[in-house]
Amino acid sequence: MSSSVSNSDRKIVTGSAGYILEDVPHFTDDFPDCPTYPNPLQDNAAYSVVKQYFVDEDDTVPQKIVVHPNSPRGTHFRRAGPRQRVYFESDDVLACIVTCGGLCPGLNTVIREIVCGLSYMYGVKRILGIDGGYRGFYARNTIHLDTNTVNDIHRSGGTILGTSRGGHDTTKIVDSIQDRGINQVYIIGGDGSQKGAAAIFEEIRRRKLKVAVAGIPKTIDNDIPIIDRSFGFDTAVEEAQRAINAAHVEATSFENGIGLVKLMGRYSGFIAMYATLASRDVDCCLIPESPFFLEGPGGLFEFIAKRLKESGHMVIVIAEGAGQDLLAESIEESKTLKDASGNKLLQDVGLWISQRIKDHFAKKMTLNLKYIDPTYMIRAVPSNASDNVCCTLLAQSAVHGVMAGYNGFTVGLVNGRHTYIPFYRITEKQNKVVITDRMWARLLSSTNQPSFMKHDDIESNQLVGEQGTMKW
Amino acid sequence: MSSSVSNSDRKIVTGSAGYILEDVPHFTDDFPDCPTYPNPLQDNAAYSVVKQYFVDEDDTVPQKIVVHPNSPRGTHFRRAGPRQRVYFESDDVLACIVTCGGLCPGLNTVIREIVCGLSYMYGVKRILGIDGGYRGFYARNTIHLDTNTVNDIHRSGGTILGTSRGGHDTTKIVDSIQDRGINQVYIIGGDGSQKGAAAIFEEIRRRKLKVAVAGIPKTIDNDIPIIDRSFGFDTAVEEAQRAINAAHVEATSFENGIGLVKLMGRYSGFIAMYATLASRDVDCCLIPESPFFLEGPGGLFEFIAKRLKESGHMVIVIAEGAGQDLLAESIEESKTLKDASGNKLLQDVGLWISQRIKDHFAKKMTLNLKYIDPTYMIRAVPSNASDNVCCTLLAQSAVHGVMAGYNGFTVGLVNGRHTYIPFYRITEKQNKVVITDRMWARLLSSTNQPSFMKHDDIESNQLVGEQGTMKW
Amino acid sequence: MSSSVSNSDRKIVTGSAGYILEDVPHFTDDFPDCPTYPNPLQDNAAYSVVKQYFVDEDDTVPQKIVVHPNSPRGTHFRRAGPRQRVYFESDDVLACIVTCGGLCPGLNTVIREIVCGLSYMYGVKRILGIDGGYRGFYARNTIHLDTNTVNDIHRSGGTILGTSRGGHDTTKIVDSIQDRGINQVYIIGGDGSQKGAAAIFEEIRRRKLKVAVAGIPKTIDNDIPIIDRSFGFDTAVEEAQRAINAAHVEATSFENGIGLVKLMGRYSGFIAMYATLASRDVDCCLIPESPFFLEGPGGLFEFIAKRLKESGHMVIVIAEGAGQDLLAESIEESKTLKDASGNKLLQDVGLWISQRIKDHFAKKMTLNLKYIDPTYMIRAVPSNASDNVCCTLLAQSAVHGVMAGYNGFTVGLVNGRHTYIPFYRITEKQNKVVITDRMWARLLSSTNQPSFMKHDDIESNQLVGEQGTMKW
Amino acid sequence: MSSSVSNSDRKIVTGSAGYILEDVPHFTDDFPDCPTYPNPLQDNAAYSVVKQYFVDEDDTVPQKIVVHPNSPRGTHFRRAGPRQRVYFESDDVLACIVTCGGLCPGLNTVIREIVCGLSYMYGVKRILGIDGGYRGFYARNTIHLDTNTVNDIHRSGGTILGTSRGGHDTTKIVDSIQDRGINQVYIIGGDGSQKGAAAIFEEIRRRKLKVAVAGIPKTIDNDIPIIDRSFGFDTAVEEAQRAINAAHVEATSFENGIGLVKLMGRYSGFIAMYATLASRDVDCCLIPESPFFLEGPGGLFEFIAKRLKESGHMVIVIAEGAGQDLLAESIEESKTLKDASGNKLLQDVGLWISQRIKDHFAKKMTLNLKYIDPTYMIRAVPSNASDNVCCTLLAQSAVHGVMAGYNGFTVGLVNGRHTYIPFYRITEKQNKVVITDRMWARLLSSTNQPSFMKHDDIESNQLVGEQGTMKW
Repeated sequence: MSSSVSNSDRKIVTGSAGYILEDVPHFTDDFPDCPTYPNPLQDNAAYSVVKQYFVDEDDTVPQKIVVHPNSPRGTHFRRAGPRQRVYFESDDVLACIVTCGGLCPGLNTVIREIVCGLSYMYGVKRILGIDGGYRGFYARNTIHLDTNTVNDIHRSGGTILGTSRGGHDTTKIVDSIQDRGINQVYIIGGDGSQKGAAAIFEEIRRRKLKVAVAGIPKTIDNDIPIIDRSFGFDTAVEEAQRAINAAHVEATSFENGIGLVKLMGRYSGFIAMYATLASRDVDCCLIPESPFFLEGPGGLFEFIAKRLKESGHMVIVIAEGAGQDLLAESIEESKTLKDASGNKLLQDVGLWISQRIKDHFAKKMTLNLKYIDPTYMIRAVPSNASDNVCCTLLAQSAVHGVMAGYNGFTVGLVNGRHTYIPFYRITEKQNKVVITDRMWARLLSSTNQPSFMKHDDIESNQLVGEQGTMKW
Repeated sequence: MSSSVSNSDRKIVTGSAGYILEDVPHFTDDFPDCPTYPNPLQDNAAYSVVKQYFVDEDDTVPQKIVVHPNSPRGTHFRRAGPRQRVYFESDDVLACIVTCGGLCPGLNTVIREIVCGLSYMYGVKRILGIDGGYRGFYARNTIHLDTNTVNDIHRSGGTILGTSRGGHDTTKIVDSIQDRGINQVYIIGGDGSQKGAAAIFEEIRRRKLKVAVAGIPKTIDNDIPIIDRSFGFDTAVEEAQRAINAAHVEATSFENGIGLVKLMGRYSGFIAMYATLASRDVDCCLIPESPFFLEGPGGLFEFIAKRLKESGHMVIVIAEGAGQDLLAESIEESKTLKDASGNKLLQDVGLWISQRIKDHFAKKMTLNLKYIDPTYMIRAVPSNASDNVCCTLLAQSAVHGVMAGYNGFTVGLVNGRHTYIPFYRITEKQNKVVITDRMWARLLSSTNQPSFMKHDDIESNQLVGEQGTMKW
Repeated sequence: MSSSVSNSDRKIVTGSAGYILEDVPHFTDDFPDCPTYPNPLQDNAAYSVVKQYFVDEDDTVPQKIVVHPNSPRGTHFRRAGPRQRVYFESDDVLACIVTCGGLCPGLNTVIREIVCGLSYMYGVKRILGIDGGYRGFYARNTIHLDTNTVNDIHRSGGTILGTSRGGHDTTKIVDSIQDRGINQVYIIGGDGSQKGAAAIFEEIRRRKLKVAVAGIPKTIDNDIPIIDRSFGFDTAVEEAQRAINAAHVEATSFENGIGLVKLMGRYSGFIAMYATLASRDVDCCLIPESPFFLEGPGGLFEFIAKRLKESGHMVIVIAEGAGQDLLAESIEESKTLKDASGNKLLQDVGLWISQRIKDHFAKKMTLNLKYIDPTYMIRAVPSNASDNVCCTLLAQSAVHGVMAGYNGFTVGLVNGRHTYIPFYRITEKQNKVVITDRMWARLLSSTNQPSFMKHDDIESNQLVGEQGTMKW
Repeated sequence: MSSSVSNSDRKIVTGSAGYILEDVPHFTDDFPDCPTYPNPLQDNAAYSVVKQYFVDEDDTVPQKIVVHPNSPRGTHFRRAGPRQRVYFESDDVLACIVTCGGLCPGLNTVIREIVCGLSYMYGVKRILGIDGGYRGFYARNTIHLDTNTVNDIHRSGGTILGTSRGGHDTTKIVDSIQDRGINQVYIIGGDGSQKGAAAIFEEIRRRKLKVAVAGIPKTIDNDIPIIDRSFGFDTAVEEAQRAINAAHVEATSFENGIGLVKLMGRYSGFIAMYATLASRDVDCCLIPESPFFLEGPGGLFEFIAKRLKESGHMVIVIAEGAGQDLLAESIEESKTLKDASGNKLLQDVGLWISQRIKDHFAKKMTLNLKYIDPTYMIRAVPSNASDNVCCTLLAQSAVHGVMAGYNGFTVGLVNGRHTYIPFYRITEKQNKVVITDRMWARLLSSTNQPSFMKHDDIESNQLVGEQGTMKW
């Protein structure tokens, strides 16, 4: 027997043995009597042979699946997929798609599959692309999208819709949605953009508009919580291997050769960690979650000196957000000496740490340090096969959810199953590498690098309970 | 409160709310008083900062995770990972590794990581490679393995140990294990080889030897049940895109161009299905699980004619095991006309169906059919980054399990978590594409191909209950 | 002082010290008084800084450049490039482009660059694509081409114009040219197609039409004489490495493993030879120019047995045209036993020789032979960077030549310089690997394979005088 | 009839019709009576069928091959290849190989093929690798090289011998050569290293040592004169496409997106030029040979503004040596403001020009500039198939020349033929893009960029006579 408790923000359903469902909003929450229609997929030849094609209303997926014989069942999310009844008539739908933030492999595939999913599965004909990110809602014309215009776009990196970073005006966006008569909004973007999506959804609800808002998480850094990973991560780790291989070749060809590779990861070091684990050539991996220091015993310089002495060369991978505290200090110190543009350059941690290493060893030994920043070469590649399938299933799940009346959700893989997750769970914190967890221990064991930590660091970093690492 | 019921073969533990654990054998089952030692990882610097590094004895992972608020908890498997106590002293270990069956991307990475895992994590020094598959136990000399010899092998496809297909003698193998004093056996192979592993394990148990046997599943076809997937599948799907792209280019450059690609999959069409979903150029995907027929209404020839008329070209992907019934029929008919070697050639379904299509349309229209068989080009590539991480975690999980005294298990990903699965669950049936399931429906929807099925096919193919498709 | 002797077919100019120029036809041969115009490039900003941009009328390139202090100067060809005066007004040009024969990497780049060259350099606006090869002149509608439609086509393999093999009707083609008012015909095709171009040119001349016909040689096999190589060859050799690598991995992973790769080359073994030289894993390379035999002392089977005994594995590369005499014999023998379609299959030399090797060793030892045919995967890839530049310069050279009034020529690289070569020199014989020459000796030295030759073979194969191999 | 004039440095032979041979030194110049031996290749099975395998003593190759009917024959170089007689007994040879300067794709292949050439063709057994460049002669131990140790090295980028930049001591090097009894020195390096080779050769001659010194030109920038190109260039241009593609994707996905790619080329812009020609996405290519300016009419900023207005995005390729005058000025100006390390960063022209562009447009419009520096990712890749063949032929040519007694030469492709070129011709000047030549005009025409030149620039840049561009 399950009971439902819903406050203004959250829909919580409970069940037996400690079962909890964190449900997502639904059209019927605000429009209890809104009409429904049979799902057009019922007449689709491709699905005629499929038994139980439609997802059971009760299907949910647990967040935590490492369990004990008698542990409570815990939090669950609603399973994604098509439902028997839909809340839109195909001809009434006016959908729009927007891509926000930095590039990520697979954006075009997601766009393509939302368009193809809406068209082929639900017979939707009117789909708009918003040009250049959120601001495009009010600053630019829309782009007409159909299955022809998107047919080959997945072969190219980037986004055919254009994108942008930075601020936007929620009110103007909802005005634009209202003015144009848009009733389905698909937002592909990172945690910032999902927050934007939540705000848009709130405003839409406030205005009592019957408009669905769905998020598809874009997170090349893997910094969105709850979900296993999103599209583009696999491709990014793959592409990062090129840079690491090059760093290794440069390092081994010169006396005291150091290959230094900067990878994406402003707040979360997943790409650096997985690229290091997938390669076998990295001697040191520095990520935002794991503090380190340069000088003195146990510091980076000491480790570099040791490794060069042992093997004559080394490869260092650094996430762009690592060592920001050191860098900030360093900039502070030099403020009186340098102008704005000089400092600007130094804010690239890769350039900064290259210089620091060179300066430190300048008097001691001849280093051959080569710095590689493959960031844009990684972001701009088309998605690989695995990510193509990932994009397809995310896009289709989003479309199914919207057609079925769900609203204000992000679609995401939870333990390998597609689910609908309320916005607030996606945006309330960032997913980070848990450096007291086994995956990071595996990395330390593979690189044999020191932990660079002091005892108090260890204490303050411990995360109890929830698993933060990717669950491959 | 949990209770344990163990018959000769199976160790079943039950818990609250319908919880069932299908446990794996353990040294203590047969040697209740065998000595244990502290896990050497406790002294490893890399792990010193990790809280709760060791897996809790009670950690298990559910097989089924799409659940209802009140559904029973169902079958679970034991979570993989290091334990507080180990059942081997490092210096006493004599481990061996054998690779069996056809090539698969990642074999060398798994070998490398077993060797590195044993060496770096557990201080094991004596590791042998068995040369040329199972028969190498008694027919050939062993190969010495250490961290130097395996250092770069993951960059190459294939297996440095060599492999073989076909029969072997379990008694001779166990004789060899006994004679050499081997006490850890790591078997990397497909479902046939896992059956072999089960037989070896039974014989070892019968002889009351204190030898651990662990399987690492190799299944480029993804035909091993229970597990999400194993290493090499991702790389294979990626590499298959090249062949499909080429087929597409050839097809679109000629009038009535048909590009026909044969992919791996003797009994399970997963590679064909995922390669089709990852590409966007396939018009028809034929797999062993989905019967089809050539002639008459609703048949393949009719569909080809229709598609060529519509768009002037088409791409067909066929799994090697598809249409075997038709092929068998065809060979039977022609027996009086052809000799053995002629028939041999026809047993390649790709060549056979190419010929049938050409023959059928010979009198009707000019076809330009190009047949591509990328099988060995796919099998021989090195694993990609994602599969490299996959190989690493599988290998380490196997090593942890063996050191912790578990035995007679295959390591595998279940819902994204590494687990120990009893041999019998891996070998009792094959994983197949469930053609009445949503993933196949997605494929049909993406290709718009007919189902090629008659009503009675549909009935007989239905699978109730268990989900058979990969859970991406 | 030079004098010119011109018969109906050939324009020969002589100079000092044995200098000979084999010139190409020119508009002024048939229309001595036709008007000329200043080259529009003179007003092009990009060229304003270029000194001596226009090719001197006297510039020629020698065919033979390995010379002695006192050797005669020999045959030369006219250097390609823009001339001061052109014979077309931009607005009067109606150009067409046709692609003929099998696919070759770079076709789309050549198409693109003819269009861009005509448009950007000469202001030509009316360009047609002929659909589906020669027959498209009269069997199909034309395709409108401009710089927009061709902008991205070089990223894809194949040809956007479509192509075809087989016969065509020269009269109908010239009728179509005349009817449509086409006055520039660009023909991209192999030696057969260049013969077709020569016939079209003759018919045009017979009808006294003022229409230019230019050939761009397409020869993935490198079987066109005189020229160094043409576009696509480099890409093909590169792509062939994948297949050879895979063959090597398969061969080394199995006992008595043989990896057999069939490469393009019906009459000329250049791809097989260069792919073997570029790889380091090939033990035996079989090409049409070098006869071989299977059984007995000095035969292939003996060599295979020897190599397997020595190293346990081997890689064989065979060009599709190698061993045709053996294959023909074999088919003859089996005629009474097999039907047409069975024989058809056997005509693939790769399948045939695989079967012969398996049969021969069946009673002697267990072979693991893996056959790889990457033909269509090679033909369908887009051109690499080097071939892209090659395509661009060939296309621009053709356009410059046509605008300058030259006619009935194929453009080609001679000793690294672009030249205009009369059709008859291109079509009079095929370029072949000279097996008594150094490049083949280098290959034999690198594979250590026997020459498979008997003394009389050697005698009959000798080529005196002209160098046949590619001049890298 | 030819006559020979030899001064201390140069060996000039003249022939009929203006024929000139710039010959290389030979053992017999200094040791007229030194013994010779029959070439061991005469007994090599692979060469037994080859007619005229040995190069005729009179074979030479012209430097200039665009000729007029009556033009003088001009400068020639000696053709590379094996000779009938050799000047070393195999057992007496002690060869050494050294790699100098920055990495270039193909170094390992050249090393491999010198070793294999010496071993397989000439039966040489004693070959040393010098560790870490020129200084390794006296600062480090040598590395033993044989066909086993080099068997797989061509699959990896970099150099297994290690390399270094910077100064060295010629006397110490020759001391080391003398002490170790080395009699063949193979030097793989750029123009600086070839100068070093010339100095070593002079010192050896001065000491009257019977030691051969041969250079293999390494010039990823293509800045060595006379030769067509050397190994690695093709691979570099290919690899550069990745960076340009990424820049294009980033540029087109953002409003006013600029993708800026820095490529190698300190003094010669060939890689930038060919990478631009091979791509189709570059709007502006800046090279050292073509001066440009930033501000005012006709400057770079104006062009950027124009192009962004037209198409909303642009891709700029800049060679590392471009705009050094502007950069020097800029550093001078800011000297009072910045410290040494700050200036250091600014000396990267890519970072510098990125900052200048951002600063310039900061007040005018929102730019999205992404800077990509793929330098080390290009340098570190293994050579592609085409370069592998190139490396093989260069290495074999060097070995043949040394065995045949030639000395003090660099081996190089001249008009597609391998030749021996005296050191002084290789080192007397650098090969540069001739910006008044057609290849640069082709580039300007393809990018539609302005020439950025003033009239006096044009005058001073003109090169009359000799063709400087690569002759593809």
